[in-house]
Amino acid sequence: MTLAAAVAEEQPRVAALLDRLAAIGADPPGITRHAFDERENAAHALAVVEAGRLGLQVARDAACNLYLTWPGAGRSAPRVLLGSHFDSVRHGGNFDGAAGVVAALAAVSALRATGFTPRADITIAAFRCEEAVWFGLGLIGSRAALGLLPREALDRRRADTGLTLADHITRCGGDPDAIVPGTRLLPVGPIRCFLEAHIEQAPSLIEAGLPLAIATGIPGNIRHAAIRIAGEDAHVGLPRRFRRDAALAGADIFTALDALWAEEEEAGRAMAFTIGRFHTDTSTHELTVVAGDFTFSLDLRAYDAAHLAALEQRLHAIVAEVAARRGVGIELGPRNAAPVGPCDPALRAGLAAAAARMGIATMPLGSPASHDAANFAAAGIPTGLLLIRNANGSHNPREAMEIPDLMAATATFAEWLRAEAAGWSRSRSVGIS
Amino acid sequence: MTLAAAVAEEQPRVAALLDRLAAIGADPPGITRHAFDERENAAHALAVVEAGRLGLQVARDAACNLYLTWPGAGRSAPRVLLGSHFDSVRHGGNFDGAAGVVAALAAVSALRATGFTPRADITIAAFRCEEAVWFGLGLIGSRAALGLLPREALDRRRADTGLTLADHITRCGGDPDAIVPGTRLLPVGPIRCFLEAHIEQAPSLIEAGLPLAIATGIPGNIRHAAIRIAGEDAHVGLPRRFRRDAALAGADIFTALDALWAEEEEAGRAMAFTIGRFHTDTSTHELTVVAGDFTFSLDLRAYDAAHLAALEQRLHAIVAEVAARRGVGIELGPRNAAPVGPCDPALRAGLAAAAARMGIATMPLGSPASHDAANFAAAGIPTGLLLIRNANGSHNPREAMEIPDLMAATATFAEWLRAEAAGWSRSRSVGIS
Repeated sequence: MTLAAAVAEEQPRVAALLDRLAAIGADPPGITRHAFDERENAAHALAVVEAGRLGLQVARDAACNLYLTWPGAGRSAPRVLLGSHFDSVRHGGNFDGAAGVVAALAAVSALRATGFTPRADITIAAFRCEEAVWFGLGLIGSRAALGLLPREALDRRRADTGLTLADHITRCGGDPDAIVPGTRLLPVGPIRCFLEAHIEQAPSLIEAGLPLAIATGIPGNIRHAAIRIAGEDAHVGLPRRFRRDAALAGADIFTALDALWAEEEEAGRAMAFTIGRFHTDTSTHELTVVAGDFTFSLDLRAYDAAHLAALEQRLHAIVAEVAARRGVGIELGPRNAAPVGPCDPALRAGLAAAAARMGIATMPLGSPASHDAANFAAAGIPTGLLLIRNANGSHNPREAMEIPDLMAATATFAEWLRAEAAGWSRSRSVGIS
Repeated sequence: MTLAAAVAEEQPRVAALLDRLAAIGADPPGITRHAFDERENAAHALAVVEAGRLGLQVARDAACNLYLTWPGAGRSAPRVLLGSHFDSVRHGGNFDGAAGVVAALAAVSALRATGFTPRADITIAAFRCEEAVWFGLGLIGSRAALGLLPREALDRRRADTGLTLADHITRCGGDPDAIVPGTRLLPVGPIRCFLEAHIEQAPSLIEAGLPLAIATGIPGNIRHAAIRIAGEDAHVGLPRRFRRDAALAGADIFTALDALWAEEEEAGRAMAFTIGRFHTDTSTHELTVVAGDFTFSLDLRAYDAAHLAALEQRLHAIVAEVAARRGVGIELGPRNAAPVGPCDPALRAGLAAAAARMGIATMPLGSPASHDAANFAAAGIPTGLLLIRNANGSHNPREAMEIPDLMAATATFAEWLRAEAAGWSRSRSVGIS
């Protein structure tokens, strides 16, 4: 059987697997698979069943990440790691995360059907809690796996349950005490590379009419979950010169950042910022009272570490200018950051060539979003990322990936694994002993 | 006894009365006297006790407004009406409203002590529910008294109790069925004028170092309690050109209105706008989701009807421009309006002269806020308004009027009433039969 035929035979199984994942997450409107909770556990259990069918070895780490390994002929050769995550935002879509694990499973299944035997281990990972909405920090599972999770993260509380991350890990069978910065939880042995497939969260592929993009890089981000502006509550009749309007200061910052983005775009420097929470205090604000308090969140992202650092400086300058002009105090509050994740040039070329051999047209594209892959890239592990065409964005119930586009990612992974097999023992690797 | 001496003797009683009102409203931090509820009733009861001491006749109308009348020698001569309100916002100050009723009572008390007898009735009114926070509509008592309350207002619910305005009026002993647009509930007979004293809600008198201002006019306002912007929820990674960010559209409108205000101020055209509520949906917003929904309130005010209408047109133009540019829908929602209230030139001159005769320096000043007086002015009744120096604005616990400044208003009222007594029978009047 040709690899193309084997991939084609995977499509009904892929569709059925995605349907079962949708049933697990059903939470109208859309899909909710809470991180470190029953629904994410159920998705992991489904992947374990699939692993059983494929004869993969099952392992879990202290952070409850799942590893499904197809043993290679040479067990000590650098392994290829593929994977993504199963958790979702609240009332999100079915494919953000899940698509990447399913594509990796289907690629292994198709390769097995052609009689292929890998030279080294191929491990499919399902990382926990990629979405930042649960604990105010994203990519938690892959950070922990790479020894990159700060200890303080274990004390963060999930807004809905009130339990800490450590509590949730314990309840899922993990061991928070074994999650230590600097200690990797990944399967032992050298790692050849990390590959991820993820739906595109922007409509660039829809616009281009292509099923797949080879990511050029993953943006790093700087996040402030709650920036507080302190002005002064005042009567509706207060003249302009006396006002210290916290909400107006918030509006000034938002429009200044938008102008900065427009300017960067004009100059061809890719970036993005998002202010998703932007609000007066809804328990005390009034129609007739100038707002003395205002709170907003900020996510600032770029593809180059120096560019991101420069943008953060611009942010600080904007905040200082607005604070002085409006007579308000502005506290940025806790800062989280995810490093920029450059994609490996050889992997980019190899994935594009593999796709082309399977008759799949691709384009290079900066990843709109951060992904688990970003942690691997930042850790110096060669990283490749496929972006799958998807309508209506992500993190909402209207997210709409077509199964054939997921099969294009499956085919690309399978062909890359097949073609690269010969070269594995000679490849550079970054691993642990 | 001279009038000045009589006014001076009132000061300890005024201070004690204000202390009792503060005790009624105590709700740390600050003062809450809920409209149409026990605490407002208790303040009215306190005024009735004071009226008993002064020998005033007590009456209530169907909207539960209180009228305390010092009968004049000629009962059919046009009466002078003075008054303000006792309700407050939540956690507000003690003086917004109450100061005006107390000053009127003290002026009558001082005049009585000098042996003065009025030629016509002097009626002190305490109007209900001046603050818009309770039912989303302000000046309710004085609107009802003048036959200006729309019928639909009776169905409005108080956010905290969930009861309608009609329910609350009934519970306070009033009769909602008798509150009919076009029917006045004021004491029968012609009205010479309406006079109000109110704390200034801005620091203009603090800045000028004067105790009292003679208002040149009361701003009319246009209010939208909940303007809704509908964009599209989207992932944090969505490029700028695809976004329909509702919160950013809100920020654009806020900064555009602020620029408009700066421009009007530059041109010497007094106005104000306030966006007190300005928020993403706090039940669904997320750090990593571009906001598809945004809500804000708007209060727009000016001193001239044509100017206010022109500003409303500018608002509509700004909203249309932002909606088109950001690709969002904007619904202004329900609109409330309070008419512009010009102050009577003869009363302005008379009050300024009376103050000067009492040795009190005053300045002319556009009232920062709307007051019950605005309804009288809009109804064609000659209206005068004194603004009392007050620190830290109003509608907050830090509101700070000094008692001697309230005594300056008391002295001005008393001297105006004394001096004008001779002319009453010849004055123009607007009244009802």
